[in-house]
Amino acid sequence: MLYFSNTISEEKSSEGVERTSVAFKTLKSEMDEDRVGYYKLPIKSQDLLEDLQTLDISQFSQIVVIGIGGSSLGIKAIDSILESITPDAKEMIFFENSDPLTISENIAKIDKERACFFVISKSGSTIETTSIFKTLIGHFNLELDNAKNIFAITDKDSSLSKFASFHNIKEFNIPLNVGGRFSVLSAVGVAPLYVAGYDVKAILEGGDEFLESFFSGDENHLLQKANYLYTNAKQESINVVFSYADRLNNFTKWYVQLWGESLGKIDKNGNRVGLTPIGIIGSVDQHSFLQLIIEGPKDKNITFINIDNFNNDIKIPDISLYGIEKTDFINHTSFNTLINEQCSATMQSVMESGVSCDKITLDTISEKNIGAMIIYYELLTSLVGTMFQVNTYNQPGVELGKKILYKNLGDK
Amino acid sequence: MLYFSNTISEEKSSEGVERTSVAFKTLKSEMDEDRVGYYKLPIKSQDLLEDLQTLDISQFSQIVVIGIGGSSLGIKAIDSILESITPDAKEMIFFENSDPLTISENIAKIDKERACFFVISKSGSTIETTSIFKTLIGHFNLELDNAKNIFAITDKDSSLSKFASFHNIKEFNIPLNVGGRFSVLSAVGVAPLYVAGYDVKAILEGGDEFLESFFSGDENHLLQKANYLYTNAKQESINVVFSYADRLNNFTKWYVQLWGESLGKIDKNGNRVGLTPIGIIGSVDQHSFLQLIIEGPKDKNITFINIDNFNNDIKIPDISLYGIEKTDFINHTSFNTLINEQCSATMQSVMESGVSCDKITLDTISEKNIGAMIIYYELLTSLVGTMFQVNTYNQPGVELGKKILYKNLGDK
Repeated sequence: MLYFSNTISEEKSSEGVERTSVAFKTLKSEMDEDRVGYYKLPIKSQDLLEDLQTLDISQFSQIVVIGIGGSSLGIKAIDSILESITPDAKEMIFFENSDPLTISENIAKIDKERACFFVISKSGSTIETTSIFKTLIGHFNLELDNAKNIFAITDKDSSLSKFASFHNIKEFNIPLNVGGRFSVLSAVGVAPLYVAGYDVKAILEGGDEFLESFFSGDENHLLQKANYLYTNAKQESINVVFSYADRLNNFTKWYVQLWGESLGKIDKNGNRVGLTPIGIIGSVDQHSFLQLIIEGPKDKNITFINIDNFNNDIKIPDISLYGIEKTDFINHTSFNTLINEQCSATMQSVMESGVSCDKITLDTISEKNIGAMIIYYELLTSLVGTMFQVNTYNQPGVELGKKILYKNLGDK
Repeated sequence: MLYFSNTISEEKSSEGVERTSVAFKTLKSEMDEDRVGYYKLPIKSQDLLEDLQTLDISQFSQIVVIGIGGSSLGIKAIDSILESITPDAKEMIFFENSDPLTISENIAKIDKERACFFVISKSGSTIETTSIFKTLIGHFNLELDNAKNIFAITDKDSSLSKFASFHNIKEFNIPLNVGGRFSVLSAVGVAPLYVAGYDVKAILEGGDEFLESFFSGDENHLLQKANYLYTNAKQESINVVFSYADRLNNFTKWYVQLWGESLGKIDKNGNRVGLTPIGIIGSVDQHSFLQLIIEGPKDKNITFINIDNFNNDIKIPDISLYGIEKTDFINHTSFNTLINEQCSATMQSVMESGVSCDKITLDTISEKNIGAMIIYYELLTSLVGTMFQVNTYNQPGVELGKKILYKNLGDK
């Protein structure tokens, strides 16, 4: 279960009522008319699971994922969170960056006999992904024809798809109406996470339940939050997600891509719009970023995320240290309690400083909760994007850098 | 060597000349009058190294660091970067967060017979640090009296210092005029990194050389950059550090604390001022944050950091894949070249979008370069803090949350 607290109260102005109503209807029509595909993934990807069950994957104990951006961030987010409750989960190794040291280090971790390789690229020709894939083919002398240890995940008819067909390599497609950063519940996330041993069915169910609830009109707080973020975008241009759990770090990175790349756009009037996402982790970042939130410019709002029950009972023992006796009041307290009390106390201090915040509480770490969190942030992104009147689903700004790179490297 | 490119041209207005001149003199007097201690650390900590050489540390192959914020971020930054050029470096295990899952996971990594424990807290009573320390004492049944495997790093006469004296535990002090986030070149970083096998002397030398150069008036670009960041603070309120190397990730986290916590302040006129730091990594975040930089609000400037020579020759092999032949132009290219070309191309595209940026190039990964980078960012922070007329070295905003926590936990 997710609990939402300190949510935005309902805006009663006719403008606000109209705006949230239009946004809700826009999302509904994007879904009903199949213009935007992510809404249907929690249901559609159930079929994919049936397909996956027919594969013989028993020999694989290392899942190598070659992908970047939308082709890795969501998978990493889920792997990081669920790994702690999935004792049999297989090792996942991610090749993302073109950093030579990381590539060399990751290669050294791979045992070819136990590994399967997921090559993931929506376009089919992402330069990091194809370059690393070639490097792995060369290094491990991978057989391509009829390979049972290689899987391609890409758009239908993409260059990577042509490659897979040619070599009779198993291929999964991303629906054409699902953008990369909205694709984690498509084959992009479903296939590697299933092979890694995660309960993907439950993730999809959690996503579906939240989606159903939203479109049934039972998540009004989400509409109010979107409206608040939009109407305060000029003043509060930075949206901080402050997660009290190390394992949510990759989730915040997924959020940063989703939010930044979807909303940072030139709108239909030619204006540069968008909101800047920042992900930080508690309690550590109380000792880093918090001072700026409390006393710096009032240009931020904060969403706290905490996990009520980590299912871990490690406690501060009843030890009194000479000189440090003043910390004895905390003896016998579990770290589970400490970190959640730190979250509450920090949120209270942030509110007292006049900075807006809300809180999402996961009752515990579960597949359903992570599925719901993914859909929550995807819906919020679509709602705010609609209000900004931008195309939430493209990313034209990154093309120029690619062109310059291709030209510069081609010239050499 | 560090190379600075696309730097800010000299401001010729009398106001600008005056501002940079005053800021430079302020730093010089902070140093000369010993009001701010970090300027002298590259020299003073050389003595510390002599002290450290007298310790018998041969039995330790795991360095456990218990610290948070300024007592961990700088150490992690240096460990991450230099580990790749220090084949004999010992394993470092960091206990920072109050996250119960991370604490349990880290405990499982420790081999008591091979481990030494650095407990680091400037105040001596940081709640995460003392709680985790007690937990380790309890779990491993650590002997405290005359312990040779425990080291305390703290302020003179702090509660942790009293504890260390009482048990005859080796203690290192942080100069009282050095704040936590400026303390990495004090015992905080020097002692654990030395024991871990790093060439700390060279780090200090690199820092000292840059410092000397700055105070000799040879780093005018730094004054111009500070002046630019200050005068454009309202419009460009977000300072992004875009590092093209995975191993610089922890360096950007260190930067985020330094920048955010030093400058995010209520100024002497009662106004909330500050600049928001963001650390991202290339090429991965080209697929995440870049779109927002290029098309989103013009509220950011970007400092690119790259490493010319990773000393790694892994290459994209001469393999042509059916369907993906259009990427063949990049065959034979090293990843070292690819990532640096990506940095250049991205920087060019960012400039063409009208967003300000500059670039710092490390010729290679070296102790001297990391020492210089630390001093570079510390000086920049002090300069901008002086211009903002804030107290760069305190953090009053985080006290309220602590009080609320203590009250809430004490009440239970």
